[in-house]
Amino acid sequence: MPDEAYRTDSPVEDIAVKLLDKGGLVVSTAESCTGGLLAGRIVNVPGASNVYKAGFITYSNKAKRRYLGVRKGTLKKYGAVSKQTAGEMVKGLVAETGADVGLATTGIAGPGGGSDEKPVGLVYIGCSVCGRVRVKKFVFDGDRMRVRESAVTAALDLMIKCVEEYYTENKSK
Amino acid sequence: MPDEAYRTDSPVEDIAVKLLDKGGLVVSTAESCTGGLLAGRIVNVPGASNVYKAGFITYSNKAKRRYLGVRKGTLKKYGAVSKQTAGEMVKGLVAETGADVGLATTGIAGPGGGSDEKPVGLVYIGCSVCGRVRVKKFVFDGDRMRVRESAVTAALDLMIKCVEEYYTENKSK
Repeated sequence: MPDEAYRTDSPVEDIAVKLLDKGGLVVSTAESCTGGLLAGRIVNVPGASNVYKAGFITYSNKAKRRYLGVRKGTLKKYGAVSKQTAGEMVKGLVAETGADVGLATTGIAGPGGGSDEKPVGLVYIGCSVCGRVRVKKFVFDGDRMRVRESAVTAALDLMIKCVEEYYTENKSK
Repeated sequence: MPDEAYRTDSPVEDIAVKLLDKGGLVVSTAESCTGGLLAGRIVNVPGASNVYKAGFITYSNKAKRRYLGVRKGTLKKYGAVSKQTAGEMVKGLVAETGADVGLATTGIAGPGGGSDEKPVGLVYIGCSVCGRVRVKKFVFDGDRMRVRESAVTAALDLMIKCVEEYYTENKSK
């Protein structure tokens, strides 16, 4: 789990905001299952206005298509909770907002909506840093609130990892 | 304070979601100072997908203009934290999303950004129910997190009040 590598005394959102600020990077968010909690955690850090651009809560498929440009065919073929949809969400998000960094979440928070193939707790998180997109799959335990809180923390952890990699690569060039 | 009138054993977001669902109403959100927490509270209610349409986190003035159609002149004359901006945010939100109900927040969560005229804790909340817009001013105590949590609860309380009024009026027609 990526969230072990960054544990310090500071909340993960503080580390994330400081890291973005260090490189002058700006982030946008697109949230389905986390429904605003990811943005809420980022914006709770004083000074977040330096690094936070804009966010969408695209709970419905229609909103995913309208604001993020997710294709109808992708939603039909792979479903809203899929690697493909998460990837299109985050790509559409950075294209729309012009942010350096994008974070997108889509998952099944429960209690309903799960299946054998896609159980409750399944979450895909997409992260884009200056054009490089990564999508990661998670399966979280617990009730609706815990799944969503875990997804928020995992999204912030993934972003920290991707941004650190980006800084390291650019430094060595 | 409006939040006293609706206290029951259920969290206010449960009451809000049930109330909307009862009348088949759908809500959208536009958040500045609450930065996603309002949507997060609504979406945490199981079954929220029946009543929640889409949301914007318009932390910057640019985002308020782009996604909600807030006028440049309004932001310049009255500021982002004003009755006028809150009103334009919620009107733009329902026009954009086609939701029956809109909720918008704009305020100063602190610790910085306050002034004598506009202190930390000042929050304007706009609510639109089927075309009728109301904007309410609040001044909340406490730190950044408490101001934002109070704003979320006040927004849900205001929405409940406005929707109940709407139901009562339509019943008697």
